[in-house]
Amino acid sequence: MAQDVRVCRPWVMTSPPQLSPHPDRLLPSEPGVRAIARRLYAAVQDLPIVSPHGHVPAQWLADDTPFLDPTSLLLSPDHYMTRLLHASGVALPDLGVGTGRLDEAASRRAWRILGERWALFRGTPSRLWMETTLADVFGVTQRLSAQTADDIYDHVARCLTTSAFRPRALFDRFGIELLATTDDPCDDLAHHEALAGDPGFGGRVVPTFRPDRYLEPGREDFPELMKALATASGVDTGHYAGYVAALENRRRYFVEHGAVSSDHSHADVVTLTLDRAEASRIYAAALSGLADPAEATALRRHMLVEMARMAVDDGLVMTLHPGVRRNHHTPTFRAVGADTGHDIPVATEFTRGLQPLLERFGTAAGFHLALFTVDETVFSREIAPLAGFYPSVYAGAPWWFLDAPEAIRRFRGAVSETAGFYRTTGFIDDTRAFCSIPARHDMSRRLDSGFLARLVAEHRLDEDEAVETAVDLVTTIPRKAFKL
Amino acid sequence: MAQDVRVCRPWVMTSPPQLSPHPDRLLPSEPGVRAIARRLYAAVQDLPIVSPHGHVPAQWLADDTPFLDPTSLLLSPDHYMTRLLHASGVALPDLGVGTGRLDEAASRRAWRILGERWALFRGTPSRLWMETTLADVFGVTQRLSAQTADDIYDHVARCLTTSAFRPRALFDRFGIELLATTDDPCDDLAHHEALAGDPGFGGRVVPTFRPDRYLEPGREDFPELMKALATASGVDTGHYAGYVAALENRRRYFVEHGAVSSDHSHADVVTLTLDRAEASRIYAAALSGLADPAEATALRRHMLVEMARMAVDDGLVMTLHPGVRRNHHTPTFRAVGADTGHDIPVATEFTRGLQPLLERFGTAAGFHLALFTVDETVFSREIAPLAGFYPSVYAGAPWWFLDAPEAIRRFRGAVSETAGFYRTTGFIDDTRAFCSIPARHDMSRRLDSGFLARLVAEHRLDEDEAVETAVDLVTTIPRKAFKL
Amino acid sequence: MAQDVRVCRPWVMTSPPQLSPHPDRLLPSEPGVRAIARRLYAAVQDLPIVSPHGHVPAQWLADDTPFLDPTSLLLSPDHYMTRLLHASGVALPDLGVGTGRLDEAASRRAWRILGERWALFRGTPSRLWMETTLADVFGVTQRLSAQTADDIYDHVARCLTTSAFRPRALFDRFGIELLATTDDPCDDLAHHEALAGDPGFGGRVVPTFRPDRYLEPGREDFPELMKALATASGVDTGHYAGYVAALENRRRYFVEHGAVSSDHSHADVVTLTLDRAEASRIYAAALSGLADPAEATALRRHMLVEMARMAVDDGLVMTLHPGVRRNHHTPTFRAVGADTGHDIPVATEFTRGLQPLLERFGTAAGFHLALFTVDETVFSREIAPLAGFYPSVYAGAPWWFLDAPEAIRRFRGAVSETAGFYRTTGFIDDTRAFCSIPARHDMSRRLDSGFLARLVAEHRLDEDEAVETAVDLVTTIPRKAFKL
Repeated sequence: MAQDVRVCRPWVMTSPPQLSPHPDRLLPSEPGVRAIARRLYAAVQDLPIVSPHGHVPAQWLADDTPFLDPTSLLLSPDHYMTRLLHASGVALPDLGVGTGRLDEAASRRAWRILGERWALFRGTPSRLWMETTLADVFGVTQRLSAQTADDIYDHVARCLTTSAFRPRALFDRFGIELLATTDDPCDDLAHHEALAGDPGFGGRVVPTFRPDRYLEPGREDFPELMKALATASGVDTGHYAGYVAALENRRRYFVEHGAVSSDHSHADVVTLTLDRAEASRIYAAALSGLADPAEATALRRHMLVEMARMAVDDGLVMTLHPGVRRNHHTPTFRAVGADTGHDIPVATEFTRGLQPLLERFGTAAGFHLALFTVDETVFSREIAPLAGFYPSVYAGAPWWFLDAPEAIRRFRGAVSETAGFYRTTGFIDDTRAFCSIPARHDMSRRLDSGFLARLVAEHRLDEDEAVETAVDLVTTIPRKAFKL
Repeated sequence: MAQDVRVCRPWVMTSPPQLSPHPDRLLPSEPGVRAIARRLYAAVQDLPIVSPHGHVPAQWLADDTPFLDPTSLLLSPDHYMTRLLHASGVALPDLGVGTGRLDEAASRRAWRILGERWALFRGTPSRLWMETTLADVFGVTQRLSAQTADDIYDHVARCLTTSAFRPRALFDRFGIELLATTDDPCDDLAHHEALAGDPGFGGRVVPTFRPDRYLEPGREDFPELMKALATASGVDTGHYAGYVAALENRRRYFVEHGAVSSDHSHADVVTLTLDRAEASRIYAAALSGLADPAEATALRRHMLVEMARMAVDDGLVMTLHPGVRRNHHTPTFRAVGADTGHDIPVATEFTRGLQPLLERFGTAAGFHLALFTVDETVFSREIAPLAGFYPSVYAGAPWWFLDAPEAIRRFRGAVSETAGFYRTTGFIDDTRAFCSIPARHDMSRRLDSGFLARLVAEHRLDEDEAVETAVDLVTTIPRKAFKL
Repeated sequence: MAQDVRVCRPWVMTSPPQLSPHPDRLLPSEPGVRAIARRLYAAVQDLPIVSPHGHVPAQWLADDTPFLDPTSLLLSPDHYMTRLLHASGVALPDLGVGTGRLDEAASRRAWRILGERWALFRGTPSRLWMETTLADVFGVTQRLSAQTADDIYDHVARCLTTSAFRPRALFDRFGIELLATTDDPCDDLAHHEALAGDPGFGGRVVPTFRPDRYLEPGREDFPELMKALATASGVDTGHYAGYVAALENRRRYFVEHGAVSSDHSHADVVTLTLDRAEASRIYAAALSGLADPAEATALRRHMLVEMARMAVDDGLVMTLHPGVRRNHHTPTFRAVGADTGHDIPVATEFTRGLQPLLERFGTAAGFHLALFTVDETVFSREIAPLAGFYPSVYAGAPWWFLDAPEAIRRFRGAVSETAGFYRTTGFIDDTRAFCSIPARHDMSRRLDSGFLARLVAEHRLDEDEAVETAVDLVTTIPRKAFKL
């Protein structure tokens, strides 16, 4: 966004453009409001991208290996795309899900399937992200269809053979100021270290401490995970005190490697504090595979409070992404693995669940707790009221099933009236789809500009304030929430 | 809708028109968006009506008996109307609820009550449906009021004496391509058979298998229902295997008589699978009236999975309409019976509840499961994510308390971003109010046109795509979801 | 509102106006809709204020003591303001929360903090209320900021020294027709009595019976409360029958002093009926501090049904304001007391919870039950369906976290399609911030005008009907719901 990302001259498509993302896309349709929104958007359009939570592997940037083909880059890893194709009857392996990289013929076939079924995505953000990515990153101006799929595939494939489309070149072109990855606590962060020490790379790529598996004593592989944690930390995890110390150790390691936050995604956000003896007892049982499910859950909830306690000490921002029933369809999970499109949201409670944690640390100096949700009923009922009182709590941006135009508007409509704009985190793209990062941030900026423009048009805000707020939403607000 | 339904020339009202439904009603107010919406609506306005779920008795069409009077046709059976009048202080029997048909004086009095209290319905869809029905079906252009009630009553009553207003004539005039009724599993479907065999009737009227009562082993009359089921099926229902076989038998009977779906409305959609011995044991207990409530509920939940299993075999689409506390006010239920306006929604959970069913049949070839709700919090949180992954799951259209303009817009806004348009069922009118069927479908078409027009105006969709989608929503989409 | 409230000539600010509330603020932005909304708003703008539920102390009006300073009048008691400042890092005592009145220097300092952090309130209704209050009541036309805080403080402080800004003068200026306060059952209502008997005061100020504490047998201070109740009523509360009689006695006392409603705010609205022996037993246990929590909760739920029974007899309207986890952060509660900004909403169920109460009294002659909520998921799912059937039930206006523009629009959008406009209560300001009462009612009138205007623009309502409805919403509708 900092530079013009549409230029891909050597491969300019020969067919006349049929469609290109409209400069006013996603702005409000009423001409008076749109005029205001255009001015607000102009103020933020080219600002650098701050991406404090996402899933791009640091290795891509460290190795700067060329991307391979359009399907493995733009389709297979994007479960927003593959799930809806699956719903329409396509087998996931035909899209490269759970198969490893497809060969050239299969890769092209998968891309054709996408073209044939492009109508499925009408009304979804995936369509807009793909369209914007194809246009702005690759210069594609044709609409995807059965007819155009091969041409577009060839065009993108040609682009990917050139140095201008290698990860670091795109990182620069996209104007990314900061990119946070998501990492296992036992990861040695070698790629982050390599990037930080590389004088040829000017960007900032930071790890995020994501300890979910290590906080679920009910998992079958918990004993092995504890061994791995011991190895990584050099701390004996044979007892509860060591377990806690090992986690503290790894958090410190992450902090030393630039991490700004830890991220937590469990089935709920219930918290509680066990006494030390009870925590020790359950931990010991879990190590022997003997903790019963209720005990294991209790220890997990206790450990979430421990994470908050450690955050107060080591300064990592704590972000919560709860409320998803993972791997809803076991046969699919068995066939193609996790994260394949059937994690389904459930209702989630924050007010009572987080009370024990906030009772202890809600007003602790420097503590930051960002609350994300896939259950939008809590926007106005729980998250905004919590963020509107506790100095530690930030209302997380719309996430996953909600990171789309209508949902983003509902989020602002539900949260702002209680918590304003300055108690929110700013946008996170939460994506592994590297090439879509500019499109996602651009969408968010357009929608916030539109929301603010409506406030101006309804004389609820003056335009100078709206401009300042729009800029803050992509600069000072995420920097403050994530301590950048 | 296929023909001009406003013509009722012999009874043209003498008073000057004071109000008639505006040609742009329900389209977005912003002139630019409205212009697009008009073009989209023009493409669907006159398409035939597909009504795959509703409550019109097949007998009306089989016998083609004239309707009797305005009150028994338009007011008494419409619990949207009678409930709000009741809330304002009118006794239900004064509206013909629970009384059988009112005599002429009482019928006219009931209609006058409606006229006097017409302001109650401002902001409701009932007002729009009634207004459109009166105008388009009967040529009434005056607004209902205490002053006009008698005139309108007389006018409609005169219409009803003519052959142009008999059920089959209206069926043709309305342009109904398919009408599904809702029927008891023991029904002999004689009226459907008569209609199918009648060379003078060109429409398609199909039954729907609605076995709720037969799947609730906790009901007091369950033993009698099992006897009736045995009689209808010719299968001994004295044991569990016979119960299952009898249901399979009746489903087959319905399929042979044209049914395309089974419909299920229980308090929740929790599903589970009992082992055969346990199911048999509970069934035997229920036959003796000895099943405890928890057991009875377990068997009902198990039987819902059985229904899915049968659907995989016999091809009936399975539709769920859960989440209502029936007969909330016992004194009213005792006085005037069920379906009298005090069925009140409750929060409903789909993600966890349906997991056991979807685990087994979610990707089964040919299985279709349409999820309706009166709890709109599940639109974005549960239904769209399920419909966005499972090939079997379709997001059901807004239903009952939600089949109204604002709620329909919320539905599209909540569902489309995850599931698009092509994983939804299309509109169902779900009504017993025969004369309002065109008005309801017309409302839905206007609102979908408006929603799509906004996407076009915001450059999120091209207009050619929007036109195609609008047409699909009333043609290919319901035909695919309901296997028509 | 009845008079021009902007005039404060002796203190006209010398700096040129930088901002004043725009005459079209909060009206829809689309010019066609706005034109209609303006006409509707013009019809209601100057109508008297009916405030049937709020928290202004009657003593202010009885004593007519001058207000002291801007901070203690406009900032310290407004927990909408202080909570968001707290979230941004300000200590509550620095804002005068929990401290008693601040001295002049501290008061000015608190006001400066507000000015410095004014951006926090962008997008909130607090900003609009404060802006409108400062402009319309005090003639302030500058925007609050670090630069203007002192000037505005001085200006308001000067106003407060004059007789035109004493409580009664403002009461008249604001055009308040009726103001309900909220009072403890043991209050002697001397201030209400004084006002009623004062020939120099023309307004109507009525008490509201708020017995929450006396209906929570689980409270530690329950035995002392029962003693106080005995003293106030002259009825022996040593046994259950006396407890009930004492409450009846105090309700009667409130009725005799002009009360029109009782108000109830518990954690939930579950109701049940205990048999007399069980109720007596639990009550006796509670008097000895021996009732266990489940028993205490059961008695509270039983007593809510008793309140309904009494309401049928004595005619008090029953209003429910449930669903808040009070005093979420114990350290803050201990430091500065209750009602300090950390009451956080929780999900609330009405359909099943109220069934036992409505079963008995839902259709009782003259019974009125107004349902408020901070959980907006129940608007369309539970409250509108209940208000759309039961003659006793009224859908309460948006409350607390929901009494803001976007939420009010969502309320109308969710409730009107099932319950229309005439089964709602009309607006309540629910505030202790006396000077903001006109601003709050004005906001509500603008938003309802805008909502109705959209219905007109979409041809869902005729303009004459919309005007009538807008007027009814601030006159006949609250008068009927609250029996004024």
